[in-house]
Amino acid sequence: MPHIQPRTPPGTLELLPREQMIFQHMLDVIRRSYERFGFVPIETPAFELKDVLLTKSGGETEKQVYFVQSTGALQQGHEPDLALRFDLTVPLARYVAEHERELAFPFRRYQIQRVYRGERAQKGRFREFYQCDIDVIGKDKLDPAYDAELPAIIVRIFEELKTGNFTIHFSNRKLLLGLLAGYGIKDTAKQALILREIDKFDKIGADKVRTSLIELGLSESVTNPFLQLVAHKGGKDEVLADLRRQKTEEPVFRQGLAELAHMIEALKALGVPNERARLNLKIARGLDYYTGTVYETLIDDHPEWGSVCSGGRYDDLASFYTKSKLPGVGLSIGLTRLFDQLRAGHLLPQVPNSVEVLIAQIDPQLSGAYLALGVELRHAGFNTENYLEPAKLDKQLKYADKSGIPFVVLLGPDEKAKGTVLVKDLAAKAQFEVTHAALIEKLRALAPRPAREG
Amino acid sequence: MPHIQPRTPPGTLELLPREQMIFQHMLDVIRRSYERFGFVPIETPAFELKDVLLTKSGGETEKQVYFVQSTGALQQGHEPDLALRFDLTVPLARYVAEHERELAFPFRRYQIQRVYRGERAQKGRFREFYQCDIDVIGKDKLDPAYDAELPAIIVRIFEELKTGNFTIHFSNRKLLLGLLAGYGIKDTAKQALILREIDKFDKIGADKVRTSLIELGLSESVTNPFLQLVAHKGGKDEVLADLRRQKTEEPVFRQGLAELAHMIEALKALGVPNERARLNLKIARGLDYYTGTVYETLIDDHPEWGSVCSGGRYDDLASFYTKSKLPGVGLSIGLTRLFDQLRAGHLLPQVPNSVEVLIAQIDPQLSGAYLALGVELRHAGFNTENYLEPAKLDKQLKYADKSGIPFVVLLGPDEKAKGTVLVKDLAAKAQFEVTHAALIEKLRALAPRPAREG
Repeated sequence: MPHIQPRTPPGTLELLPREQMIFQHMLDVIRRSYERFGFVPIETPAFELKDVLLTKSGGETEKQVYFVQSTGALQQGHEPDLALRFDLTVPLARYVAEHERELAFPFRRYQIQRVYRGERAQKGRFREFYQCDIDVIGKDKLDPAYDAELPAIIVRIFEELKTGNFTIHFSNRKLLLGLLAGYGIKDTAKQALILREIDKFDKIGADKVRTSLIELGLSESVTNPFLQLVAHKGGKDEVLADLRRQKTEEPVFRQGLAELAHMIEALKALGVPNERARLNLKIARGLDYYTGTVYETLIDDHPEWGSVCSGGRYDDLASFYTKSKLPGVGLSIGLTRLFDQLRAGHLLPQVPNSVEVLIAQIDPQLSGAYLALGVELRHAGFNTENYLEPAKLDKQLKYADKSGIPFVVLLGPDEKAKGTVLVKDLAAKAQFEVTHAALIEKLRALAPRPAREG
Repeated sequence: MPHIQPRTPPGTLELLPREQMIFQHMLDVIRRSYERFGFVPIETPAFELKDVLLTKSGGETEKQVYFVQSTGALQQGHEPDLALRFDLTVPLARYVAEHERELAFPFRRYQIQRVYRGERAQKGRFREFYQCDIDVIGKDKLDPAYDAELPAIIVRIFEELKTGNFTIHFSNRKLLLGLLAGYGIKDTAKQALILREIDKFDKIGADKVRTSLIELGLSESVTNPFLQLVAHKGGKDEVLADLRRQKTEEPVFRQGLAELAHMIEALKALGVPNERARLNLKIARGLDYYTGTVYETLIDDHPEWGSVCSGGRYDDLASFYTKSKLPGVGLSIGLTRLFDQLRAGHLLPQVPNSVEVLIAQIDPQLSGAYLALGVELRHAGFNTENYLEPAKLDKQLKYADKSGIPFVVLLGPDEKAKGTVLVKDLAAKAQFEVTHAALIEKLRALAPRPAREG
C-alpha cells in the first residue's frame, strides 16, 4: 500500500510530549489563577451557526473565518451554515445573551479554548491557537474597580509562569479622546484615526506621529504638549498629577480621570507591584470596541514579541443578541503564540516530567511484584509507569532517559530476597539501594511535590 | 438594530458554569488517573489535511466528516482541503508515524479533546463531543500485560467519578475467531459476520442469534455448545477453565487463551477487584480493527446507556502512514455522552463550587480593606471573589446563593473596629463572628481541600 505522508496542516502547533507537558503546565497555572480570583469556567462549541457568529457584515474578520459543512451538505452544494469561532468574545456575547436569566451578574467567566483563523500561512501566524480569556460582565453597569482586578491576576500568572520580567501597560481611552475633544477634534472617526497613530508611537517614533496628527487636523500649538503628555515617562502618580493639571473640562476626560484614579488606588490595595503595572498613555488600542481602560502586557526583554496579554473595558458586550446593556472588562492571553516565542528563544519554563518513576522489568518471574509495586507507588501519589515489555535493562534505561523519567526502580531476585530495591536517579547519574519499606519516603524527599493526593 | 437569536448549533453540549465545574472535575479525574499510570499528554489540531485524515475511501465515517474551508477558498469555489477529526485514533496514528523517531516506545499517550461528526441531529447524538483516550503503542510488538493495565486505570477513574457501580466486560477476539476456525468457518468475512451477531446477544436474545449463526453456516451440532460457552455466566477463572477444555488446536485460539490467561493474572497483581472486570465472551465488538483483547464498560444500573468506555487491542496502528509495524491497545471514554446521561438521570457527582468565598462590599470607605482581605484569602489558597459593585447586602447574598458560593465574608465599620469579620455559611444557613486573625483557620476547618497551594 502506498503511504500517505503524515503531516499537520500549516499554521497549527503540535508538540512532542515533553513540550506538551510544559504547555499543559502553563494552561494549568492560568486556569488556577483565574479560579483563585473567583472566575467560573465555561466552554462553548468550536463552531457556531454562521448567522450567529458573523453578526458584522464584511470586514477583515469575515475574510479569515473557517466555514464548516458535512459531507452530505457539501455534496448537495449547500452553503455552509456553521463556522469555527475566531475568538472567544463573540461566543461569550452569544452565551451571555442566550443564558442571561440563568446567570448571576456580575458574571465572571474564564474560558480557555482554541480559536481558528483562516490566516495566510506565515511564520508566527497561527490558524489554530489557544486563547485564555477572563471577562467580568455587568448588567447595566460595572464598577471601575473591576478594571484593577485583572492586572492583579495577570501579575500572579506571569510571575508563576516564570517567563521573564514583564510589564502591564495600561491606559484609559477616555483620557486621550477627552483631550482631543478639548482640542476641538470632536469627530469620532477622526479621533479614532488619531488614536491609531498614537498606538504606533513606539514603532514609528514621535516625529512621524506628530506629522500625522497635524495632517489629521490637530493644531501645531497643541500637538507638542499633547505628545509630551502621551509619552510621559513618569510613574503612575506623576502621570496622574500631570493629567489632573490639564485644563480641559470635557466630561469624557473628567470621567476617564476619575476611573483612572479609582483604578490606581485599587491596584495598590491589591498589592500589584508598582513596576508591574505602568500607566502608559501610548496604549490606545486601535479597536473602537474598547471604551475605557485598555491593557497590553510586554515581556520586558522581548518587546518585539508584542503584547502577550491584552484587553480592556467595553460598553456593551452583546448588542447584536439582546437589548440588555452588558458592559464588561476582559483580558486574553494568547498562549500558543507566547509558547512558540518562548520556545524559539529557548526560554520555556522548567517543568517537572509528568511521569516520575519507571519500574523496570528485570525478571519475568517477578512480574506480579512489579505490578504490585506500581500500585503501591501510585497509591503514594507518584506518577508511575511499569515497563511491561521483556527487554534488556540498558534498553529500559534508555527509554526512561528519552522519556525524561527521573527515577528507575530495579527489583531483581537478590533485592527481592533482601527486601530492598535499587533506585537509579538519572538526573544525578546516581544509584542507591533502599529497603522496600523506605522507598516511598526516600522518593518523596528526592521529588517533593505539593499535592500527592494518592 | 434587529437582534439575532443567540443559540448554539444542534448536537453540541453547552453548560452553565455550575455544570461546567462538574464536567471539568470529571475531566480532571480522568487526566490525573491517566498521568498517575505514567501516560504522557499530547494534543493534535482539531482539523487535519483531508487527504491525511480520510485514508480509507468511502464508508460510513466519511459521510459524517465535517469539512473546513476559509472564506477565500469558499468564494473561489475550491474543494475543502481540511476536515475536522472524527476521533482521536486517526490523529494518533498520524502523530506517531510523523514523530516516530522522536518518540520513545512503548509510547503511552493520553489525549483529551473534542471530536466532530456530521451526524443527523437526534437526541443523544452529538456533533461535537469529548473523547478521553489512552493508548499504548509498541514498536513491532507489545506485551499482552499492557492489556491488563487499562482496566486498572478505568477502575480507578470510575470509582473516583462516583457515577455508580460499573463493570468492565472484556474478552479476546482471538478466542471466538479461533473456535469458529475450529468449527470449519475459516472465511474471515463470515467470521466477522458471526461476531457481529454475537455482539447483539444481549439485545436480541440467544434464539435469534442461534438462527442467524446457523444461517451463516455454523452447524447445528456446534451452535448450542458454542453459544453456551459464549453466554457463560461464571467468573474469570471458571470461564478460563471451560475455554481450556475446548478441543480446538487452532493456533489463533491457543494464542488468545495464552493472552487471556496472562491478562487475568496481571489483573490480579494490579489489584483490580474481581467484580469490576468480567470476562464476557459476548463482547465481540463489530470493528475488525480490534484483533485481541476488547473492552466495554457498563454502568451496572444503566445498561441501556451502552458502553461508556470501550477499546481493545489492534495489530497495526498506522499502516496508512508508515511501514513500521505499530501494535497497540487503547481505551476511550466518551465523556460528553456520559455527562449528558448522568445529568438526565440526576446522577451527576457532587462537586464543590469552584468559588469558595465572596467578600461583600458593605461600606465604600472600606473598599481597600476588602481588596486586601481578598489578597490574604487567596494567598491562603481560597478561591475568593470580591464583590466590587456598590449594592445592597441582600442583593450580594442572592448573588452568592445563585452562584453557589458557600461563604460570604462581611466586614463593616463595627467589625473593622473590633478586628473581627462576620461569616455567612450559606449551606448551613448560619452566621458567625470570628477574629480577623482566626478567619483562615476557621474557613480551612469548614472547607477542607487537599491542596491549597497558595
